[in-house]
Amino acid sequence: MPEVEALTFAEIERKLPHADDLHAMDLADLKAAFAGESQAAEKYLVFAEKAEAEGLPNVATLFRAISFAETRHARNHLRVMAGVGATADNLQTAFEGESFEIDEMYPAYVEVAKVQGDKQALKSMSWALRAEMDHKRMYAEARERVVAGGDIDAQPVSVCTVCGHTVIGDVPDKCPVCAAARSAYRTFA
Amino acid sequence: MPEVEALTFAEIERKLPHADDLHAMDLADLKAAFAGESQAAEKYLVFAEKAEAEGLPNVATLFRAISFAETRHARNHLRVMAGVGATADNLQTAFEGESFEIDEMYPAYVEVAKVQGDKQALKSMSWALRAEMDHKRMYAEARERVVAGGDIDAQPVSVCTVCGHTVIGDVPDKCPVCAAARSAYRTFA
Repeated sequence: MPEVEALTFAEIERKLPHADDLHAMDLADLKAAFAGESQAAEKYLVFAEKAEAEGLPNVATLFRAISFAETRHARNHLRVMAGVGATADNLQTAFEGESFEIDEMYPAYVEVAKVQGDKQALKSMSWALRAEMDHKRMYAEARERVVAGGDIDAQPVSVCTVCGHTVIGDVPDKCPVCAAARSAYRTFA
Repeated sequence: MPEVEALTFAEIERKLPHADDLHAMDLADLKAAFAGESQAAEKYLVFAEKAEAEGLPNVATLFRAISFAETRHARNHLRVMAGVGATADNLQTAFEGESFEIDEMYPAYVEVAKVQGDKQALKSMSWALRAEMDHKRMYAEARERVVAGGDIDAQPVSVCTVCGHTVIGDVPDKCPVCAAARSAYRTFA
């Protein structure tokens, strides 16, 4: 297959569905479809990792490609719901989502996991809660910079592949949350 | 920052939370948390594309990294719910998910979008429905091969970044679903 240049975002943008003046039933359906596509995309990514571990690299590729297709559907549904704003607004939306998870959702789930005595559930919920606190701060700082008219500084952002711990700048020798080695981090730059 | 080797899947696997003998309330919480993390991960990916388009590459990197962190939480919650099986079972789960979307969900949503007259919603729903039909067939074929003890053939899988159309093998000159150019496809191999 010959190599082809990917379309630019602006070229894709012109072809995509855009915000509708939606009726209530379609809005409800799009919300449900966005939730379904998002969960399918995540499941297929995990299934790809599992296929890789079982020595089935081609099945892993199929799962990864179809996961990407589901992200395209999720994006299109989100656009039609007018769920994508300017970046300053998107940072605010992200900040509010993280705040909900920190102030309401995970503290409630952590207490339930404690009282029910499900240790693995408690671990998974606690790891997520810790990471969301860092995310909230990062989004708040980024929003200030964007509202002031600029980008944030160019710095690598690294994520622990085990627990999701997120750090800007230097990667720690050991994950402060789950104690995974430095090599467990994946860096975005 | 020095380059580090990523951990192998097996090394990560040993550190991850694993399936709990879950109580009902924790199962419900994990399902809700998985849904929330999956949707956050997708939103942040779209917000990253938007930031890129606005000339804010460092904010885009931040969104991409945090999106990846949310996928780690989603994966951990899914594992604790015992939602990850052997690959043959995962292909069956994927097949059933696609079947539901094809037989129930999208046909219902498509009819509602028609009767409500929301053209952009109709477009987004119809594009997704079409892609799921291909996904269902691909998962069914892959499952046969895996159950018979093998991997599928090594072939590139390409996805239209506009509508999610998915094709194994040669990329068409024009997307048969949304008419995007060949260059709109992203290939996984």
